[in-house]
Amino acid sequence: MSDSRPIGILDSGLGGLTVVRELFTGMPDETLIYIGDTAHFPYGPRSPQSIKAFAMSNIKKLAAMDIKMLVISCNTISAIALDSICNELRDIPVVGMINPAARAAAAHTAVKRVGVIATEATIASEAYTKAIANIDPSIKTFAKACPLFVPLAKEGIVDAEITQRAAQRYLDEMIHRDVDCLILGSTYYQRLMEIIQSMVGAHVQLIDSAFWVAKEVKTMLNAVNARSGVSGAGKEKSTLYVTDLSASTQSIAAVFLRDTVPEIKKCIL
Amino acid sequence: MSDSRPIGILDSGLGGLTVVRELFTGMPDETLIYIGDTAHFPYGPRSPQSIKAFAMSNIKKLAAMDIKMLVISCNTISAIALDSICNELRDIPVVGMINPAARAAAAHTAVKRVGVIATEATIASEAYTKAIANIDPSIKTFAKACPLFVPLAKEGIVDAEITQRAAQRYLDEMIHRDVDCLILGSTYYQRLMEIIQSMVGAHVQLIDSAFWVAKEVKTMLNAVNARSGVSGAGKEKSTLYVTDLSASTQSIAAVFLRDTVPEIKKCIL
Repeated sequence: MSDSRPIGILDSGLGGLTVVRELFTGMPDETLIYIGDTAHFPYGPRSPQSIKAFAMSNIKKLAAMDIKMLVISCNTISAIALDSICNELRDIPVVGMINPAARAAAAHTAVKRVGVIATEATIASEAYTKAIANIDPSIKTFAKACPLFVPLAKEGIVDAEITQRAAQRYLDEMIHRDVDCLILGSTYYQRLMEIIQSMVGAHVQLIDSAFWVAKEVKTMLNAVNARSGVSGAGKEKSTLYVTDLSASTQSIAAVFLRDTVPEIKKCIL
Repeated sequence: MSDSRPIGILDSGLGGLTVVRELFTGMPDETLIYIGDTAHFPYGPRSPQSIKAFAMSNIKKLAAMDIKMLVISCNTISAIALDSICNELRDIPVVGMINPAARAAAAHTAVKRVGVIATEATIASEAYTKAIANIDPSIKTFAKACPLFVPLAKEGIVDAEITQRAAQRYLDEMIHRDVDCLILGSTYYQRLMEIIQSMVGAHVQLIDSAFWVAKEVKTMLNAVNARSGVSGAGKEKSTLYVTDLSASTQSIAAVFLRDTVPEIKKCIL
């Protein structure tokens, strides 16, 4: 059995293209439909009420496109609005960013001390702390909002001293907490991985939420025999939509996709 | 003759409160109605099309409130959408940020070399360059987008080495261009004034667009005898609206207003 319908991806902007890249790599036959809400990016500093309203308005567009599964590739939306989205889309399986990374961290930590860095909204929601406590209540989770990391990653300032200073500012606490595992709870942070790793030390395992969610999507599709039966060319048939197309959209997308980018289309707000 | 109707202020977020502060200081009898579009902040990285759409939707709310004048306290909106706004509000005088600061710079520069720092959208629009050339075509204008300044100012990271590095990154060019005048073309930059001044040197005159627009509003109201006739308490009767009220709204507002903040209300999107 197979299911060649596309997988829908909802993101607050372009950071979710790191998840798209992982999905293309792991399942080259799958077709994706991505909506990045660049008109309202970034979601991280906004109120839960606005985050839910923006997410739900885009969910309706994706739900109308006959998708077989929905991936919420944005940590902030996953942390704030996953329950509302699942209630709205009762017939479509929904995968968020929080649980796959939380499970990976719980499996990796030997000292039972996990760090989480993410946007203000994700940290304020305590979504990661609660998810890890659900898996293993003996694990201590230390969470830290890093509001400058998204603008730095977006500007591509990834190896300058300015980023080192920001990393030091945010990660000092993690180092003192002796975590052996650090969840990168925003897809944007993947771009800052090297500097984060060098700051916390090689003994700390970084958990990239994009990698783990793509792994989970593959496992779920395999489990219900819903992988695409059409061979190859999934990427060529995939479509990337954004809600605001600015002069830098295509070039920022290329950085996150680390590849040539299919034409990005503007969808109606 | 007098006119006690309120002055409307449109902003993309909370940075326009620096203009509100200048207006309260210069004209304590005036009542203000402020709308900060925090649900869509920041406008700086967005496309002209989205900036116009967001601005026009809030203009309609302000126009319905019987205002005697509209101040666009956001440089990005002024640079991109001032003409559209003036066309929409034919009966209400509209003051934007660009011309008052451009005139001040033209008056101050002795060497006829002016620098402008602002958001991506403001710089891409070339609004300041064109405005200065209109005033005096012999003045050379050097413009530079500083995308990290808004997040740094918003986080209140104003005197750390990280901000110094960012300032160095952006302002080196201005120093080499030998400007004697630098327009702070975003209200957020007022918070970084000290670090900017120390970077470019004391011989460079900083032009704070918030100060100059408030001066222009006062001159215009005086010219048409439209100052408020009601004495005192303008601040107490003023109303601040935002389109998204998050946990940090009130505290960020206090920083820009440098004073106690009237209750901030959420207005419908």
